[in-house]
Amino acid sequence: MDLGARLLNGEKRAVARLITMIENNEKEAVNILKKYYNKTGKAHVIGITGPPGAGKSTLTDKLIKQLRKEGKTIGVIAIDPTSPFTGGSILGDRVRMNELSTDPGVFIRSMGTRGQLGGLSKATQGAVKILDIYGVDYIFIETVGVGQSEVDIAKNADTTLMVMVPGLGDDIQAIKAGIMEIGDVFAINKADRDGAKRTATEIEIMLDFNKTDRRPPVQKVIAIENKGIDELIVHIKEHMNYLKETGQLHKKRIKNSKLEIVDLIQQKMMNMILDRSSKEEIVDKLAKDVALRKLDPYSAGEKILEEIK
Amino acid sequence: MDLGARLLNGEKRAVARLITMIENNEKEAVNILKKYYNKTGKAHVIGITGPPGAGKSTLTDKLIKQLRKEGKTIGVIAIDPTSPFTGGSILGDRVRMNELSTDPGVFIRSMGTRGQLGGLSKATQGAVKILDIYGVDYIFIETVGVGQSEVDIAKNADTTLMVMVPGLGDDIQAIKAGIMEIGDVFAINKADRDGAKRTATEIEIMLDFNKTDRRPPVQKVIAIENKGIDELIVHIKEHMNYLKETGQLHKKRIKNSKLEIVDLIQQKMMNMILDRSSKEEIVDKLAKDVALRKLDPYSAGEKILEEIK
Repeated sequence: MDLGARLLNGEKRAVARLITMIENNEKEAVNILKKYYNKTGKAHVIGITGPPGAGKSTLTDKLIKQLRKEGKTIGVIAIDPTSPFTGGSILGDRVRMNELSTDPGVFIRSMGTRGQLGGLSKATQGAVKILDIYGVDYIFIETVGVGQSEVDIAKNADTTLMVMVPGLGDDIQAIKAGIMEIGDVFAINKADRDGAKRTATEIEIMLDFNKTDRRPPVQKVIAIENKGIDELIVHIKEHMNYLKETGQLHKKRIKNSKLEIVDLIQQKMMNMILDRSSKEEIVDKLAKDVALRKLDPYSAGEKILEEIK
Repeated sequence: MDLGARLLNGEKRAVARLITMIENNEKEAVNILKKYYNKTGKAHVIGITGPPGAGKSTLTDKLIKQLRKEGKTIGVIAIDPTSPFTGGSILGDRVRMNELSTDPGVFIRSMGTRGQLGGLSKATQGAVKILDIYGVDYIFIETVGVGQSEVDIAKNADTTLMVMVPGLGDDIQAIKAGIMEIGDVFAINKADRDGAKRTATEIEIMLDFNKTDRRPPVQKVIAIENKGIDELIVHIKEHMNYLKETGQLHKKRIKNSKLEIVDLIQQKMMNMILDRSSKEEIVDKLAKDVALRKLDPYSAGEKILEEIK
């Protein structure tokens, strides 16, 4: 039985093995995903993002526990900046792993961001497919931080949950601006803290400017006390219903597919440039000339493109 | 006189105009940068990053004011998530703009991240060159948030300043892991807050694992009270001296040049895929098939690559 068949058969070890293979960019794993791709598209993929300190991990854990009570199965992909010194994974050390990883209905995987140079997108998208074929009901993708990562999450997700927190100061303005466009549901965590009401008001005002036909809900939660979790799950499910009823789920998935295809092409092209050592030598030589100001980077890029053609 | 000559001549308006042209991807601006590229490489480029709420803008302002007292000229590129609803720039509204933008020795420019799809790197790198030709002594690049952006900053900078802040909770572990590798100087802002000592200790412990020959300094500051700013500037200057004395400046700039060349090639290739409408139609058609699970994204990518060849 190939690994894909073992996935379909519900073998948890096949999930871990295939994700590792995808991370290592093994051809065989891609072939399996090609073969079983038509088994994907069933899971509800939820991206979770927000600034550091917002308590995303804790909130994700509470959501998972609640969904487990409903008998749902869950996959979690934690995008995790791997420690550059130890090579170890940070989130891997967290308490959650002990609590949840023994539950047969939950599969958790940390994926490092180190040295990926765009490869993370491919690995994350691969892991989503693997968990989807495996047959979980929900897939959570959780990132650390705000930046490019939340855009990447939105590429993969049906529903993007934005976790905000009181006390971010002036930066709240910038964060809001960067994320408002992609948030489908907003959670304000640590809602018992000073400033929670103000944060909620600021987000609501921002949403007033949003002229689309669906206004994203804003839910106050206190994750560590398990408060507001049920309501948040209702909002998440309602968003999926909305996507289905309006035909937007299909549109969103076309858009995400397009971004994925473009990503894949881009990565293949990069491999074409850098994988062949003769090409890399040329890049290195030209980079030296550019650093010495003998050549400008634009002309260097054009030269290399000529070489490839 | 072309815009490049006007830049060299110290015309502030030429700076603004050329940056806009680079943002709009105008061919003429690239030609000017090609022509005057050999005038670059003189400014000390400082990247400033750290989590939201760390007070990066305030700290940058204080560093600028101090360097102005020394008679230095400064360019600032603020990477700024543009509001998706208003289209306006957020940082543009901040107090700093009023205070500093009337100073003839300071040039501040906000650059939006919206809809750039990798184009931001190109625009930022272009803006650094423009300010360098213009002749400022220091160029600050400041981002919001943690994520891909801080890696992009490190690509452009000689010195990367990491701004940390007490009270990030467990997420400090993940943040530290993600940024330790690229931080040349660490600042702990809001050092009068509870937990500042703990944050400093945690960073120091992390740095103990770093076996390179230079240990990045960790400086406590209170930006709004102007405390620790002088010391921080000493650390930043010392880092540049270290780079020069050890020959690492040249190595770093070769590395950055290589990343820039690769970026430029990647973007040109994307344009090859998406700019011609016939190609984009093919991508759209295949994305639809992928969303419907009639085709997998890997095969779709391969088909398009065949088309391009």
